[in-house]
Amino acid sequence: MGIGSIIVWCTLFSLCYVPISLAKFTSKFPSSIIGPEKITKISSQNQPLYETKYFTQILDHFNYNPQSYQTFQNRYLINDKYWGGAAKNSPIFVYTGNEGDIEWFAQNTGFMFETAPHFEALLVFIEHRFYGKSIPYGGDTSIAYENASTLGYLSSTQALADYATLIIDLKKNLSATDSPVVVFGGSYGGSTFFLFPLFALLLAVLAAWFRLKYPHVAMGALASSAPILNFENITSSYSFNNIITQDFRANKSESENCYKVIKGSWQQIEDTAEQPNGLELLRNSFKICKNYISASSLENWLQTAFFFTAMTDYPTPSNFVQPLPAYPVKEMCKAIDNPSSGNDTFAKLYGAANIYYNYTGNETCFDLLDNSDPHGMGEWTWQVRNPSLHYNAGIL
Amino acid sequence: MGIGSIIVWCTLFSLCYVPISLAKFTSKFPSSIIGPEKITKISSQNQPLYETKYFTQILDHFNYNPQSYQTFQNRYLINDKYWGGAAKNSPIFVYTGNEGDIEWFAQNTGFMFETAPHFEALLVFIEHRFYGKSIPYGGDTSIAYENASTLGYLSSTQALADYATLIIDLKKNLSATDSPVVVFGGSYGGSTFFLFPLFALLLAVLAAWFRLKYPHVAMGALASSAPILNFENITSSYSFNNIITQDFRANKSESENCYKVIKGSWQQIEDTAEQPNGLELLRNSFKICKNYISASSLENWLQTAFFFTAMTDYPTPSNFVQPLPAYPVKEMCKAIDNPSSGNDTFAKLYGAANIYYNYTGNETCFDLLDNSDPHGMGEWTWQVRNPSLHYNAGIL
Repeated sequence: MGIGSIIVWCTLFSLCYVPISLAKFTSKFPSSIIGPEKITKISSQNQPLYETKYFTQILDHFNYNPQSYQTFQNRYLINDKYWGGAAKNSPIFVYTGNEGDIEWFAQNTGFMFETAPHFEALLVFIEHRFYGKSIPYGGDTSIAYENASTLGYLSSTQALADYATLIIDLKKNLSATDSPVVVFGGSYGGSTFFLFPLFALLLAVLAAWFRLKYPHVAMGALASSAPILNFENITSSYSFNNIITQDFRANKSESENCYKVIKGSWQQIEDTAEQPNGLELLRNSFKICKNYISASSLENWLQTAFFFTAMTDYPTPSNFVQPLPAYPVKEMCKAIDNPSSGNDTFAKLYGAANIYYNYTGNETCFDLLDNSDPHGMGEWTWQVRNPSLHYNAGIL
Repeated sequence: MGIGSIIVWCTLFSLCYVPISLAKFTSKFPSSIIGPEKITKISSQNQPLYETKYFTQILDHFNYNPQSYQTFQNRYLINDKYWGGAAKNSPIFVYTGNEGDIEWFAQNTGFMFETAPHFEALLVFIEHRFYGKSIPYGGDTSIAYENASTLGYLSSTQALADYATLIIDLKKNLSATDSPVVVFGGSYGGSTFFLFPLFALLLAVLAAWFRLKYPHVAMGALASSAPILNFENITSSYSFNNIITQDFRANKSESENCYKVIKGSWQQIEDTAEQPNGLELLRNSFKICKNYISASSLENWLQTAFFFTAMTDYPTPSNFVQPLPAYPVKEMCKAIDNPSSGNDTFAKLYGAANIYYNYTGNETCFDLLDNSDPHGMGEWTWQVRNPSLHYNAGIL
């Protein structure tokens, strides 16, 4: 359980532009893979999914100041079980790592493992600089994350150059310079790609950008759910939230009622919080732990549940950010539409939130101050709060 | 006159890998245009060739350190005389400035001025950062050129990002976002493109790279004589010199004898220099001024004449780096093959060098220590000496 708050480009339902941290996740994210069937099969054959390696990267690919030449260890994962080899010019599938621990993404990208045998492809997953174990400044996050002097080297453009450098070097080392490279972005670990906008943003966009900027390195890119135009002054800042809203409003069996209840709830929470004992009423309604509650933190907590459930609305039980049932948005709306809760909006919302935060049924209360970061996504905040990083990578 | 020495990727004729300055040019380069006929016509109509403007650029497009946000004034030249306008989506022709004063290149790129009326094109010439008047650090070259801490921001990749930023902004300001952009690299100011390898290197490569890296900004690139593969570990480091050699050896009416005389001369110069009074003999043979002479500086001086004459081997009289007759390589070989100089190698070479250094006939002696830089190319040395700058821009 925890506060899992995320980037809001603009309003969801009716809340307004609040760039908040994506870093805060449940503290009880299980490390085992209960997700996509095929990955489970692969990993259950007593064969590791991949081998872990490190590549020495230069900190700054674009300037030539003395500090540019500092190096760091860039982690990557490699699986050559299916590879047809350099002699056959068999392809190399590269996952362009995004904002988190690369193992987390590799373990949830079944598509690559499933297609590799057919194409006899080498699989490579490269970790994004400043995430996971690919931390500059000797791996010391207290330095690397300290301020803009060090965090300034965390940008999409530098990460793309990392990938190009690593791929070129790897191909040379494998005598596989003629093996075509296809880059992948998309986090769904199963057999198919589904709508997965927020997580997909950086990684899928990275794959698309990589193909754009390094056409001589990658002959193709599979960028799933990549909002490549979802940047300031290009598309509406509401588009992300509109999609989430649509998921609850019109997603097959979901209902107009589900949408209306959620939309109306924000004002109701704020009104309640201002009444005497209102916060205690909210605490009891949502089983919030004793240490802290406020209207806005509760709203963030609920938003996170809606956002991430929509983003991981898989047709099978999964465990990418949280353990969830199949079609979890539908399950949430079922809870909201449940006649047994009558007109009790908070009971309806609690039922929905419980699906995201407590599918295992083990939680007794939810800690709104929990800011644990099980997937190493801490510096995503830096990347999102600095629009020029996206602007430059996207437009330049 | 002066020492005009240049970058040698490797041996010319028989001299070996000597990365030396391209910055040193004649101090008496006339600013008037005696070159291509059409340019002369345009500039003689009492209309300026262009208007000079400045654009505020960010020092570092790829990092987000505090120092990255420093700005500098990027000069560009613009001519809208032929432009059909935004309403007609008339095109924008952009010259991606290279290693020198942008006015110098604009005044020698007649191709763009000649084709602009046909296409109703807007003409824009953007100066490369760290050259001409586009100097970071408040225009203070004593800071900008001081050391790698400041020069580190001089790279092809940053320059390309400058161009993209400026073009995008300019199009927005002109309400011409739908006007297609074509980038040009190639320094020949006349109506046709000729072999022009060294000068063309950066600028033409920049145009090609720009199209590669910013396909959404430029819909086409005309990269004349662009040795886009002429980088370490890709093509032979002798290729540039081989081309120059071929120019003298097999270029239409040029002769095997011309090539043999030049090839044999280096050893002869070195042997002579080691003899008593040998340097004085050389000084007299080549009319070198009293202040300084050495075998290597004399060799550099001759190399420069051969290189730049080959690179500006235009079919008309021209004045890009020096005033020259039409077909100057042919003229040089004529001087070398001239029977009146018998077997006197130095007299032959002097006759050839005189065509490059003294076509006006005004020079009385040649100063080997002259390091004037009339075209503002001082920092080309930095760019060439730092192979990773090219490596990263070319490969990454």
